[in-house]
Formats: sequence, C-alpha cells, structure tokens
Amino acid sequence: MQKGNAVYAQSGGVTSVINASAYGVIKRAFKTDCIENVYGALYGINGILEENLLDLQEEEPITLESLRYTPGAAFGSCRHKLPDLEKNRVEFERIVQVCEAHNIRYFFYNGGNDSMDTVAKISQISQQMGYELSCIGIPKTVDNDLPETDNCPGYGSAAKYNAISILEAGFDLLSMCRDSTKVFVMETMGRHTGWIAASTALARSIEGDPPHIILVPERPVEEDPLLARVDETIAQYGYCVIAVSEGIRTKEGKFWADAGYTDNFGNTQLGGVGALLQNMIKQRLGFRTHGALLDYCQRSARHIASRVDIEQAIACGKHAVTLSQEGWNGQMVTIVRESNDPYRWSLSHVDATSVASQERPLPDVYLNDDGFGVTEEFLNYCRPLIEGQDSPSYQKGIPQYARLQKYFLPKQLPEFLPSS
Amino acid sequence: MQKGNAVYAQSGGVTSVINASAYGVIKRAFKTDCIENVYGALYGINGILEENLLDLQEEEPITLESLRYTPGAAFGSCRHKLPDLEKNRVEFERIVQVCEAHNIRYFFYNGGNDSMDTVAKISQISQQMGYELSCIGIPKTVDNDLPETDNCPGYGSAAKYNAISILEAGFDLLSMCRDSTKVFVMETMGRHTGWIAASTALARSIEGDPPHIILVPERPVEEDPLLARVDETIAQYGYCVIAVSEGIRTKEGKFWADAGYTDNFGNTQLGGVGALLQNMIKQRLGFRTHGALLDYCQRSARHIASRVDIEQAIACGKHAVTLSQEGWNGQMVTIVRESNDPYRWSLSHVDATSVASQERPLPDVYLNDDGFGVTEEFLNYCRPLIEGQDSPSYQKGIPQYARLQKYFLPKQLPEFLPSS
Repeated sequence: MQKGNAVYAQSGGVTSVINASAYGVIKRAFKTDCIENVYGALYGINGILEENLLDLQEEEPITLESLRYTPGAAFGSCRHKLPDLEKNRVEFERIVQVCEAHNIRYFFYNGGNDSMDTVAKISQISQQMGYELSCIGIPKTVDNDLPETDNCPGYGSAAKYNAISILEAGFDLLSMCRDSTKVFVMETMGRHTGWIAASTALARSIEGDPPHIILVPERPVEEDPLLARVDETIAQYGYCVIAVSEGIRTKEGKFWADAGYTDNFGNTQLGGVGALLQNMIKQRLGFRTHGALLDYCQRSARHIASRVDIEQAIACGKHAVTLSQEGWNGQMVTIVRESNDPYRWSLSHVDATSVASQERPLPDVYLNDDGFGVTEEFLNYCRPLIEGQDSPSYQKGIPQYARLQKYFLPKQLPEFLPSS
Repeated sequence: MQKGNAVYAQSGGVTSVINASAYGVIKRAFKTDCIENVYGALYGINGILEENLLDLQEEEPITLESLRYTPGAAFGSCRHKLPDLEKNRVEFERIVQVCEAHNIRYFFYNGGNDSMDTVAKISQISQQMGYELSCIGIPKTVDNDLPETDNCPGYGSAAKYNAISILEAGFDLLSMCRDSTKVFVMETMGRHTGWIAASTALARSIEGDPPHIILVPERPVEEDPLLARVDETIAQYGYCVIAVSEGIRTKEGKFWADAGYTDNFGNTQLGGVGALLQNMIKQRLGFRTHGALLDYCQRSARHIASRVDIEQAIACGKHAVTLSQEGWNGQMVTIVRESNDPYRWSLSHVDATSVASQERPLPDVYLNDDGFGVTEEFLNYCRPLIEGQDSPSYQKGIPQYARLQKYFLPKQLPEFLPSS
C-alpha cells in the first residue's frame, strides 16, 4: 500500500458512540505501517473543503482514549450534501486537491446513508483523477435504517436509553394512575422507520408491562382504532403508555406532524406528534395525559450506552482501517449477525453505492398485524444490541467527556469558495 | 412506647428515590421492639381510608431490599387532599378507626408539602380522639421546595439527571451547530420554583459550556432581553442551550404556558413553555431550534440517581422510625447541612405544620441579577447533592426493579364511602 496520511471525519446526526468509532480508527491507524499520521477534519466534509485539518498526533493520549466515552461528534459533524458528480465537479476536485496537498491516502467517513453517497462519489472521483485514495465508510445512525448491515452502531445505545426511559416513566405512571395521569406518550426519533420506537418493547418483562402501544411509520395510524386501543388498555391495566415515532403517517401517507420546513438534506422536519396524540386522547377520551420528547438526549445519552454497541462502534472503526490496508475503496463496513443466542457477530463490507441514500424499514415480520406492537422476532433481533453497560468515569457526579484541543495543520492551499 | 403495628404510605408526585425511603422505614421498623408488623397502604391515604393494607412481612426479603433501587412509588401514590379538619371530620375519623382496627400505632407518610398538611392533621385528630398514634412525615419532592430542610430526597437525583441530560445534549448540539440546529431548549419540572432548572448549571465545567441561559419562575422572563441574550450567545459560542422551568412567568406574574386546567390539589397544569420559546426564537431570530421535554423521566430516572440522594432518602426513612420511638408526633424529618466542603449532613425534625402547604423558592443569593443564571453560591449548595452513583443491577441490558407481590390484610371494617 501507498504510504501516506489518513483523515477521519464525521457526518450527519450524531450518536452516543460515534466517537467510539473515531477511537477505533485512530487506535488502529496509528499502529498501521502505511499510515504516517492521522488527521481529523473539522465539521465533516467541510473540514476537507476548507482545509480545516486537525493533527491528532498532537492531542494528549488521554484525550484520544476518552473519545470512547464521549457523546456528540468530537470532530464536529455536518449536514452538507455534496452536489451530483455529473453536475458539479468543483467540490470533488477540491477534496482530492486537499488530500493531495496533505498526502492523505486514506479517507474514513463516519455517517449514515447520505454520507455513504459521499464515500461512493469521493472514491469515484479520486479514481477518475488518478489520485490513489482509499475511501471507506463507517456506519453510524441511531435510526438503524442502513441497508446491508445487520444493525448500525448508535442504534443499540439509543434503543437502550429509550427502553430504560419508558420503563422508568412506566413505573412512575403506574404509581400515579389511580387519581392522576393515566396516559403517557413518549415520542421517539424515527422519521421514516420505527426501529427506535420499536426498541422500547424491550422494557417489558411481564404481561401488561408498558409500553402498551408502539406506533411506527411502517404502519399507518388511524385515529379511531388507536383511541379504542387506548381505552381498552386503561380498562385492563389502569394506565396506558405509548411509544410513538416522530414520523408516523396517516392511511393516505401524510405525516401526522409536519412542521412545514425541511433540513439541508431535504428531509421534512417533524415535531410534536406526541403532543398531538396527547391532545387527541385528552379531548376525545377525557383522560389526563403526560408526554416526553427526549429529542437529542436519546442520541447522546452516553451515560447509559450499550456495551455491545460501543464494542461494535470501535470494531467498525478498526475494520475500516484494515479494509483500507487491504486496498479496498468505496466500501462501507457492515456488521453480520452470526447467531442470536448466544449473540455472535462479525464484520464485513459492501459497496457504498448499495447503501447510499437507501433506507431499511422495519420488516413486516417484526410488526404485529394490528399495527400496535412488535413481534417476538423483533425482540430477539433487538435484545442483544442493548446488552451490557460501559460507564464513563464521573467527577463530582458528572460524566467526564473528552474535548479535543484541536491543533490545526498549516493550510497549503488558497481558500475555497463553495459554489452554493 | 405502645406496642403495635406501623403503616407506611406514599403521596404526591414520585421521585426516583422515594422507595429508598420506604426501604429505610421498613428496614428499621422491623428491627424495632415496639413495632410488631409493617404495613403498606395502597395509593397513599386512600389505602387507609379504603383499608387496602399490604402485609410487608409476607413479601420476599429480596423484593424489600430491591425497593432501594426502584423508581416510582411501589405502594402507589395519590393526589387526594384531605378536607379541612374543621369542616369535615369524617375522613379523619375513618383514618383513626382503620388504625385502631389494625392496631396501627406508627404512621409514616412520605410526601411533599401537601402531604405534611395530612401529617399535621392526622396527628391532631388522633390526639383529639384519644388514640395513641405517632405520625411522622418523610420529605420527598424532586422540586426541592420544602421549607425547613436543607434539601429534599428526590431532588439530588432529578438534578443529576437533568444536568447530565443537558451536558450530553450540549455535546450533541455543539457538534451539529455549524450548519444545523443552533438552539436547544430543555424544559424542566418546576411549577413555582426553579431548583431543577438551576441544577443544570452543574453540567458546566469550562467557560462557555452549556447551559448558557437558565430561566426560573423566581425571575420574570421578558421576550426582548431573552432574545438579545440568545443572539449574543450564538454570536459568541456558535450555539445556545437553554434550561427553562415549566413555571416561568411574565413581568405581570402570568405563567408563560398555561394549559388551562388544574390538578386535584388545585395546582395549575403547565406544559409547552419549551416549545413556545423554540417557536419564538425561530420566528424572531430565524435560528433552527430543537427541544426536549423530559417530563416524568426526570423524576424516575433511577438508573442515574445520585448516591448522596439515595443515602439521604434511606436515612430519612430510618430516622422517621427513630423519632416515632422517641414519642414524637406530627413531625417531619429534615436534613441539616453541617458543612459544604467536605459535605457533611445530619438529620433533625420540625413540626409538620411549619412545612404544610409552604413553598421555598430559590433565594435571591442563588440567582444572577440578569435573571439568566445561577451564582457560585448555588453551585456550592447543589454540587454535593448529585455526588456519586448507585447503579441498579441489570439483566439483558435493562435495570431490574422491584414489584411488590401485594399481600392484602383481611378487612376489619365496613366499606368507606368518601364524602366527596
């Protein structure tokens, strides 16, 4: 393999374990003969375009070690989507120029399906320009909606946090429901897929345990059957706990809650479906309701992350380096489930193009026919992913998270003015 | 002291450590010569009125031990407020009759300021009726708004959970703020006092750390100065994290968010102030915002409870039993701060009447003059209360919480039909 430097960047919505993948990349890259130094790009692909590169060799070793325990994206993330390769090559050419200026031969991009589109394009353009570069994608998303991989780093921890949150809120509600709140609605992330909402089912241990109703985008949600189910549940158990994906839709395919604007990737911004359900239940059934919207907390709750998830995040980072040393390009690391009980997994890889801008919904076999819950097959799938704890260290009652000192490399190129 | 049985009941909104107080009461009561058996009342004072008493001797010892680790109110809580003693004695007389029927001589009531009103009244009526009963209150509230005690069991854990949540969400926001969300609003509990919102300041470790703005009911919140501060914060740090108490008010004393109905204690129900702020910031400043409403999760997040809080909750439960054996009546256990650094505390007690239906706001000396934050004095007060962890045990990634089997005592009296 070509001797040179490596760059690592983070993209898209963060997870509580994306920095564990960074840790894995850095750990292995510094031990790899062909990799001379490891750089971090600031704010994802922006860091390359703007030549904002961090020299990771300069960081304190303890800081790099602590990445393993730190939520958020320590290098900064971005929602910048590269243009179509055919329409606008300027940004792509700039990326290759920056790599060339810093002798970057290994490019590790940690993100979701939009980011794998970037991986595929960068691997293409560098080949077209005759610049030897190995570009490898590392999967990351709380949504668990990437195809080709059994699960995504980030999901297990979001699942665990949401399951524990609904478990604890369920104990609260159960103790208060006699003459106070009877309905609790927890809104989870999940714009197009219900993987996160589904995971709250792991909170149950005996018949009648919450959540009693799980609503996901894969099943249309209709008002009357839902209200009937709420009513029945309260009659039977005295209370009703609902987990709802932000992206549930009507029979006509319309989002229940559409805030009316879109993000930089063109995704519709949603919000407030939990409050909407609460209001409907209060008005039509007369029950007192409460609701939680955990929002960013669910993708950054590192304090209660899943050990399996962290191990996989680290392993995916390390495997990306291994693939690059084997000469692969335009690939994304995948997790393969070898067996369920005992849970065993291994790593593999696929062409980034087969993941790019694709989404994997919950398969039918994971969802109950009535549209209000998940099957035993889903529980068997999800359970191993939340297994184990991996607590950060605490000082004065607060987790100690890493902060990079950020030692910038001297810039070699003139400033880049983006086309848009 | 009179030989007899003890009863324990829980009242008001739950905390993640109220069952730790139950554990303390039960642990010490079973070791006390004068106490023959310990009963639990189901759903607070309702359990006495309806003679729904649980025989705790029948529970598995492991279940009682696990109460220490279990959120919610294992015995069921209530929001039933007893009538005025002068206007309606029927309920009070019934309480004494039920105690008499089961030879209950020790009454432990675990709750907030409304519950201490109950403690005071029961101790009065039993004396008036010539029935020897020791009635002791054990403080509990996430709101930390009880007078006479340095702090309340339940607060430290809510403070810790909220501080960690805003810390983690802050890391998330910081990594995304360049081209995505710039403002994050976390709404906390706190209808009349800002103790919980204030505690999020413990998340900070260096200058510029979130939360950047803390809004509490003790300081009127005005739109223009707030928006100016948000704008300045983003100009300086690139993002802005806000913690806001649900009960903030305008200069005229009106709640910012008034849902328009009241609970059984006559408290105005609030909701949505976070969403309201988000909307205002989006519309007037044009920044993209996100927000979390942790709701019940913040008072039941036992998985990340404060060790100090749990120790105090247990100690308060035990001390209540000790007071009863010393012949006290109509008292509430209090926590006394002996020193700040090192943190040392002891237990004492006050007349329940001096706590009943009183509220303790954040003192002026804990709040910045600008109305957007807390002082070093507050941090020194609050810091020891979130110290230490006391993790529950986990199975398959989920905390293992106790469930009482509930062995009901045979009823001795005819059914009670409440007056209201």
